[in-house]
Amino acid sequence: MDIRVRTRRRCEIIDITKEASECCRQVGGSGLLQVYCPHTTAGIAVNENADPSVKEDVLGWLERAVPRDDPRYRHAEGNADAHIKAILTGTQTAVPYRDGTLLLGRWQGVFLMEFDGPRTRTVRLTILREAP
Amino acid sequence: MDIRVRTRRRCEIIDITKEASECCRQVGGSGLLQVYCPHTTAGIAVNENADPSVKEDVLGWLERAVPRDDPRYRHAEGNADAHIKAILTGTQTAVPYRDGTLLLGRWQGVFLMEFDGPRTRTVRLTILREAP
Amino acid sequence: MDIRVRTRRRCEIIDITKEASECCRQVGGSGLLQVYCPHTTAGIAVNENADPSVKEDVLGWLERAVPRDDPRYRHAEGNADAHIKAILTGTQTAVPYRDGTLLLGRWQGVFLMEFDGPRTRTVRLTILREAP
Repeated sequence: MDIRVRTRRRCEIIDITKEASECCRQVGGSGLLQVYCPHTTAGIAVNENADPSVKEDVLGWLERAVPRDDPRYRHAEGNADAHIKAILTGTQTAVPYRDGTLLLGRWQGVFLMEFDGPRTRTVRLTILREAP
Repeated sequence: MDIRVRTRRRCEIIDITKEASECCRQVGGSGLLQVYCPHTTAGIAVNENADPSVKEDVLGWLERAVPRDDPRYRHAEGNADAHIKAILTGTQTAVPYRDGTLLLGRWQGVFLMEFDGPRTRTVRLTILREAP
Repeated sequence: MDIRVRTRRRCEIIDITKEASECCRQVGGSGLLQVYCPHTTAGIAVNENADPSVKEDVLGWLERAVPRDDPRYRHAEGNADAHIKAILTGTQTAVPYRDGTLLLGRWQGVFLMEFDGPRTRTVRLTILREAP
């Protein structure tokens, strides 16, 4: 199942937990939900979904560690940093689910990590059943 | 299958290879073992299991790259660094197994990456069968 | 299915998209292809496959962030940086496929990330079918 996500800023962490949960509920059973980002300047992560300051700290650290402008970058489109950030956070994750319910930890959410927005992004959800 | 792991230090790399292997042995067959961390200040990684100095170098680098104290952090619980480190190492991994045996490389082990211990952590193991 | 990859430099990003696609084509059906690296000084990533300057920027950033030589490393084999880089990029990824065709994004490729070459590396491909 593909979902579409509209991002609003260059770098932004967008909560897609609701869409991920709904996909598991519809398919049912138990196993894994894989969440895949078919873009090269965005990623997927699972992390804190309670205090929004965590998102600011994650983006702030990434901005300091991988600056947007660096004369040593060779890529001419001005988004070399976004490719590097996407590799650091990863293109995909997978979360276990049971009887149609995502087994996220108490504080966890599933996020699209936007590093070169604003854009409309696709996120691909795939359901795999666990071994009986 | 959930396992419980007791960590002893704030930042620590804990070997859970034995538990992961045992889970594959019990279920049998061939496919993937997914290893999932339902926490937001700990992660999962596969890396060197022979020389313990590698673990020290990994933790040392993470500490220098993502310092515990930084006046720019907004999150008030004093563990913003742990959230960032968890995103860098990742919340989950998956390892192929065949006929009940985990196909780790010769030097590889499966690790819980603790970044805000000591705590009691849960690790969730899910088995998926490969396509026949 | 295992594939063998010959790397030519110490740090290098090697395109294995063709091998990954061929594996999905042979097995057919729909689900996930997992790509696993059984080494501790190399990793797997999905990123930009169009402009080769992105690969240079990724390797350049990793080299600056995780220098090869640092007197603080304890590991005696001179490749502590390679272990750290492998943890940052990750040991494995998974890509959805449908009717035998890998569902990579338009600009995406699948890569072996070599951090301690030149060597001959193994990459393990595992196919999982999605829930019907």
